[in-house]
Amino acid sequence: MSDSVKRPPTGVSIGRQDLLARFVAARQLTEKLCEPLEIEDYVVQSMLDVSPPKWHLGHTTWFFERLLLQDFEQGFKLYHPRYYFLFNSYYQSLGERVERGSRGVLSRPTVAEVMAYRREITERTAELIENSGETEWPALADLLFLGINHEQQHQELLLTDIKHILAINPLRPVYCRTAETESVGNPVSGEFLHFAGGEFEIGAGANGFAYDNEFPRHKVLLRDFQLCRRPVTNGEYLEFIEAGGYADPGLWLSEGWDLVQSGEREAPLYWEQTESDWEEMTLTGWRPLDPNQPVCHIDYYEAAAFARWAGKRLPTEAEWEVAAAAQDLAAAAGTLLDQRRYHPQASRERAGKGGLVALLGDVWEWTGSAYLAYPGYHQSLGPLGEYNGKFMSSQMVLRGGSCATPGDHIRISYRNFFHCNRRWQFTGLRLAADA
Amino acid sequence: MSDSVKRPPTGVSIGRQDLLARFVAARQLTEKLCEPLEIEDYVVQSMLDVSPPKWHLGHTTWFFERLLLQDFEQGFKLYHPRYYFLFNSYYQSLGERVERGSRGVLSRPTVAEVMAYRREITERTAELIENSGETEWPALADLLFLGINHEQQHQELLLTDIKHILAINPLRPVYCRTAETESVGNPVSGEFLHFAGGEFEIGAGANGFAYDNEFPRHKVLLRDFQLCRRPVTNGEYLEFIEAGGYADPGLWLSEGWDLVQSGEREAPLYWEQTESDWEEMTLTGWRPLDPNQPVCHIDYYEAAAFARWAGKRLPTEAEWEVAAAAQDLAAAAGTLLDQRRYHPQASRERAGKGGLVALLGDVWEWTGSAYLAYPGYHQSLGPLGEYNGKFMSSQMVLRGGSCATPGDHIRISYRNFFHCNRRWQFTGLRLAADA
Amino acid sequence: MSDSVKRPPTGVSIGRQDLLARFVAARQLTEKLCEPLEIEDYVVQSMLDVSPPKWHLGHTTWFFERLLLQDFEQGFKLYHPRYYFLFNSYYQSLGERVERGSRGVLSRPTVAEVMAYRREITERTAELIENSGETEWPALADLLFLGINHEQQHQELLLTDIKHILAINPLRPVYCRTAETESVGNPVSGEFLHFAGGEFEIGAGANGFAYDNEFPRHKVLLRDFQLCRRPVTNGEYLEFIEAGGYADPGLWLSEGWDLVQSGEREAPLYWEQTESDWEEMTLTGWRPLDPNQPVCHIDYYEAAAFARWAGKRLPTEAEWEVAAAAQDLAAAAGTLLDQRRYHPQASRERAGKGGLVALLGDVWEWTGSAYLAYPGYHQSLGPLGEYNGKFMSSQMVLRGGSCATPGDHIRISYRNFFHCNRRWQFTGLRLAADA
Amino acid sequence: MSDSVKRPPTGVSIGRQDLLARFVAARQLTEKLCEPLEIEDYVVQSMLDVSPPKWHLGHTTWFFERLLLQDFEQGFKLYHPRYYFLFNSYYQSLGERVERGSRGVLSRPTVAEVMAYRREITERTAELIENSGETEWPALADLLFLGINHEQQHQELLLTDIKHILAINPLRPVYCRTAETESVGNPVSGEFLHFAGGEFEIGAGANGFAYDNEFPRHKVLLRDFQLCRRPVTNGEYLEFIEAGGYADPGLWLSEGWDLVQSGEREAPLYWEQTESDWEEMTLTGWRPLDPNQPVCHIDYYEAAAFARWAGKRLPTEAEWEVAAAAQDLAAAAGTLLDQRRYHPQASRERAGKGGLVALLGDVWEWTGSAYLAYPGYHQSLGPLGEYNGKFMSSQMVLRGGSCATPGDHIRISYRNFFHCNRRWQFTGLRLAADA
Repeated sequence: MSDSVKRPPTGVSIGRQDLLARFVAARQLTEKLCEPLEIEDYVVQSMLDVSPPKWHLGHTTWFFERLLLQDFEQGFKLYHPRYYFLFNSYYQSLGERVERGSRGVLSRPTVAEVMAYRREITERTAELIENSGETEWPALADLLFLGINHEQQHQELLLTDIKHILAINPLRPVYCRTAETESVGNPVSGEFLHFAGGEFEIGAGANGFAYDNEFPRHKVLLRDFQLCRRPVTNGEYLEFIEAGGYADPGLWLSEGWDLVQSGEREAPLYWEQTESDWEEMTLTGWRPLDPNQPVCHIDYYEAAAFARWAGKRLPTEAEWEVAAAAQDLAAAAGTLLDQRRYHPQASRERAGKGGLVALLGDVWEWTGSAYLAYPGYHQSLGPLGEYNGKFMSSQMVLRGGSCATPGDHIRISYRNFFHCNRRWQFTGLRLAADA
Repeated sequence: MSDSVKRPPTGVSIGRQDLLARFVAARQLTEKLCEPLEIEDYVVQSMLDVSPPKWHLGHTTWFFERLLLQDFEQGFKLYHPRYYFLFNSYYQSLGERVERGSRGVLSRPTVAEVMAYRREITERTAELIENSGETEWPALADLLFLGINHEQQHQELLLTDIKHILAINPLRPVYCRTAETESVGNPVSGEFLHFAGGEFEIGAGANGFAYDNEFPRHKVLLRDFQLCRRPVTNGEYLEFIEAGGYADPGLWLSEGWDLVQSGEREAPLYWEQTESDWEEMTLTGWRPLDPNQPVCHIDYYEAAAFARWAGKRLPTEAEWEVAAAAQDLAAAAGTLLDQRRYHPQASRERAGKGGLVALLGDVWEWTGSAYLAYPGYHQSLGPLGEYNGKFMSSQMVLRGGSCATPGDHIRISYRNFFHCNRRWQFTGLRLAADA
Repeated sequence: MSDSVKRPPTGVSIGRQDLLARFVAARQLTEKLCEPLEIEDYVVQSMLDVSPPKWHLGHTTWFFERLLLQDFEQGFKLYHPRYYFLFNSYYQSLGERVERGSRGVLSRPTVAEVMAYRREITERTAELIENSGETEWPALADLLFLGINHEQQHQELLLTDIKHILAINPLRPVYCRTAETESVGNPVSGEFLHFAGGEFEIGAGANGFAYDNEFPRHKVLLRDFQLCRRPVTNGEYLEFIEAGGYADPGLWLSEGWDLVQSGEREAPLYWEQTESDWEEMTLTGWRPLDPNQPVCHIDYYEAAAFARWAGKRLPTEAEWEVAAAAQDLAAAAGTLLDQRRYHPQASRERAGKGGLVALLGDVWEWTGSAYLAYPGYHQSLGPLGEYNGKFMSSQMVLRGGSCATPGDHIRISYRNFFHCNRRWQFTGLRLAADA
Repeated sequence: MSDSVKRPPTGVSIGRQDLLARFVAARQLTEKLCEPLEIEDYVVQSMLDVSPPKWHLGHTTWFFERLLLQDFEQGFKLYHPRYYFLFNSYYQSLGERVERGSRGVLSRPTVAEVMAYRREITERTAELIENSGETEWPALADLLFLGINHEQQHQELLLTDIKHILAINPLRPVYCRTAETESVGNPVSGEFLHFAGGEFEIGAGANGFAYDNEFPRHKVLLRDFQLCRRPVTNGEYLEFIEAGGYADPGLWLSEGWDLVQSGEREAPLYWEQTESDWEEMTLTGWRPLDPNQPVCHIDYYEAAAFARWAGKRLPTEAEWEVAAAAQDLAAAAGTLLDQRRYHPQASRERAGKGGLVALLGDVWEWTGSAYLAYPGYHQSLGPLGEYNGKFMSSQMVLRGGSCATPGDHIRISYRNFFHCNRRWQFTGLRLAADA
């Protein structure tokens, strides 16, 4: 990042005490999310993509120790030399690390030891926030914003990893039970809204924190398009299954069909067909499939096959963002982590509100756009540059956040990305069509 | 493809005799390219991506039998029921097929039997071309164009597969020896040309054959950009190696660095460091590295790492096509299969010609664009729809053709695509930069 | 086992109260061995051969529930239907089971739940022992003996699995610290004793418990042979390493050399070369290599290569047992689990004792005999028959027990068996030679 | 081999011209066996265990060049430096070699080049035989015997590898068609003969060539036993299948059951169930299963499961050899390579011949003995020592030769060996039982 135009805006405009409060709240939330766990749940790695909860707790801590304390704390001393190695994720520039697939064979440090590590680093970071000099504050605040957002990303991963750890267990443990809310109003219809084409701007603007991959804000050219008011529902997806969607190669991308052929795809992850019906494993227990809830835990291939079957397509990320920018975001909001529902919820019609719904929250929406650099993007050097830029190959963009995303983490320019075959996140889709 | 606007233009404008001549020439060229082979060379599959030459000969024949004869020939009878299974590649809609990795364990049919199969299908197709009725001719001509282009694609694959088969052999066999041409003039400099941004159109137009993935022709918005006059050379790439390019994780995409770490990437494929220098295996034998020739056999990760090291970037496919459309293509042409050099050649300055060179030919140029549908793209149903659309995930676009591409096969709207880690094709890069 | 001649002798001769005491002691010892563990240590599976300690605790409990309670307890009810599936090991006749490699991804049941399961089954089994009728007592006692011995086998596996789990952890945790004992006397020399050949009997006799694979007692024919008084020491093995033993293919069995070539064998497991010397990881911490202690954690290939290098060979199991039968076993005993040393110890000369030492205890000794049926062996039907007989392929016999074997579990007719490439048990060797 | 007692007897007693004739005949037979092949068949490796026929031709030639010419020919010059690398099999002491699994990716040298290599080495070896001095003759004759026997072993492998290469081909090519012989007489009954136990000698004696693994001749102790007059037949094996033999885990060794569970074992290799019946692929074409022919292409697990199902067991190799030594071998001979039937044949009763039949020939018979050193065995140093000794782990002994074994290659002391899961050789079984 060689000039100020290209760099993400800093957090300087936020006051020191406010930032401290946000920092502490983020740290606490991570620990809160772990409360329902048994010690044993913190240890296992149920598949390659999953990290043991213990590792998330340590890694997010390491991030503050490594990126803030090490550079800004006077008289800095490593908390533990081996933790440096154990809790590095993928930062090549920050030294060696444990093989990703081996995180689940490490019984030590214990959960208690990791919690002690968390407490100390949280305290030292809080002190640093309060006492750092004015000259170093802007740089520190920038990194702090990054660290908080990093912690928030891991809150979502933590929940989806916990879900997988519990899901593969034959004892069918439940993460937590939530009160059922009354559903008021009719489910939002699957109507398509029309959006006129033209020249638009997308990408992060000058206000608030954003990742480097959302920069620079730039012009795009769109043709007229349509977007469905809500994400595809379980009920619609079930129709696709029952119509033989998983048996028709003509609907599938080649790599997706290979997965189908090898028996790895026959319904969304966590769905199970009982004798009479379909059930779905959720963080709040196994439940009959709710046809009005957004379908989730599908991969890109499933999203694309469904869209093709429906005679529609996935939106591009530009279409998605341009359409979102035209909404009343308060009305368009869905279920976020803040509500603690831990599962996407059915949207209900509200009087006088006919726009897009569930844009932010409920399910991440696969787009038809590859995760690549925006025109004019410049990757930072060092660890910051490793945050996003080096993953710009073979992945697709998802938009909008999910029921596991903290509300102050998501924004309409936010670009999430996963490989096409991943589906343990809360991933769904919203249909688009040419006008 | 439900309407004429969306479908590729047909070959109807070409006369029947001309098309017949093109068909026969294409079929002959494939066989001509195999002439230097020993029978044993036709059989082996030296890695998963490679197909035995015998298989290419059979598969291109099966394509005409299956897509033309079966639907248009009166009294059609299968040449051999098992060949249907053996020579299908990936056409799910056309029935079962041999596992891709098992093509090299099939000793039968023999080369002679495959050649007999070729001859008969060529003859029957030629008869069909000459004698088909006028009403069916347009549809037939369309498929014929597709078949000829399919055959041409396999000519390129045939050569690159033969190269790999010979390269892994400890006896270092040579495909063929070519006469050295005198190099006249200075190598083209690495100067960057400036291109003004704006709104442009890319994609195939109404004239001539094009694949469905080149449609529809559509508008794009470009910022000012620069493009190097020629592809990156061996000499430049060697500088990158000697500067430690393969040892600096900061230059690499994450998936590329994994390959480097596992020892699978340390120089372009087919390069070998001798005690004193570097040598390169070519279809015409092992030779000292020519610093002026375009670097080839690098994957997307290597291309992107080089560009980052050079402080530049890869062009998007839209930039590439817009720049190409502004050139005198005769002057911008490089070495194609027609010259039978079987290796990219150094470009030389010619008086009064200062534009881009080696645009069509020499090396396929990795772009920074993912291989995805153009806005408004509609995938055909059935086997034709399987030709391109179903590969639209996890791959990157390459432009411009190579020394192994037939001259009448390539065009500036042509979109080739490969996964980021593939490099047994003649793949190189041309640098771009923001203005 | 259809007749009394072929069946193992029962435990009827032992009184009910004595057997109850043995049962309770065995159950308690297993739990005692787990006391130094953290909860987290109970969960992980550090390699395919290792089971999580939690699993051992559950599986040994399942064994009593399934084989005793289910058949003998009035009003028997399953403790938990899922535990049946979770804690079955390899008993095909007893239903489905968790994939062996997936034991480490199961966080539930928790350690506390498994301990509750243990307690209840222990209590119910104890009640059954005390209150069962006289007619069913002999059969029950038989199974009880099997269950106790099964529990003891898992005590050894538990320790070696814990060792591996701790060994792969970068924090280098220690299982427990033991007091150093004073070493009195000189180490036992590497002298060879001569044994005359002839016709002998080996195998389990009529007294005491033995596994079915030790039956029937039968005649063997031996030539004169020699046996070393003690196992091979660390010091001797180090000589082999320093003499290039791991670099000379002529010393190795072909499959062993493949392991060497692939970098998987360069010293015994748990040895590490520091800058100045060799260290060894033990359950009581990392320590400098003691040259007088028996070498352990070597596989069959290493044992055979060492013997070939030394100009000797491995003993057959018949030689081993015949030689052992001629010893004063009290004098020949080595370190067993009862001493709680958790590591093989150097043997010391004692006045007037010139025979073989460390026969029972210290290290399991690889023999040159394959693990196959004795002449006249009959495999039982059902789960009992699965205990030993079905593993009679591709494994070698080890004799003599180790520092992790309970003293009342081992006997000179005991046949342990492992695949040639396994070495996470306390496995060493004793040299033999032709006379 | 340090003394004359332990070394295999030499071929000195055979005259030079006789040995030359045997050498030439062996070389010619190998080539004769290849005559039905197409060039393409020489190249492929249809699975890891299979070598391309071209490789067998080169490797057996390399064996003479390396072990005879290099040490005995005056003015010896390597035929081709790369062939040294290409045609080494597993001789670590003789230098590097091609990865076993990569033999099928080498198109060069061509078959014609390999044949030229064969011709020259055959000629030079023949000259050496005729002209070598008397002092070197004994050593040379020893190696010549080894080379001829090595060539003969590869004749059997050549046929079984060709069988596999043709079997996996969907075109179902036939190796050669043989005239059907009339079957005279009733099939030999499945009667068991009784053999009295006692002390016997087994192993190679002082006359004729034998491998080092057949030495030393030594005493064994046997109990009374029974042996079936003939190998198990297809009809009997079919009964086992139809009785659910492949569905009952109680019959199987654990490793065998794993193969069954993974779907890799459901009938002998090359059997195929048609709608109405069973067919078998043979070198002379696909044929209805002949119930009287010996079952073949079963692995050790299948042999052991069948025996357990039948209430019998496999013989030990000592039992087999002792029983064989008591037969009139002319009457006990079965079908060998010499008859060119290329498939095991049903044995027929002949008047007055009530002994064991098909002992030498038809199918290799799995024994219940592991392939280990005889007491007193000494492995040679260097390449000769690599011939047999280094494979003495994890394999089982097979006895008696097959329809693909040359008649002058087999003897009753001959010990063949394979891993338990191999079955592409002509492997069957003969039942034994305790008396």
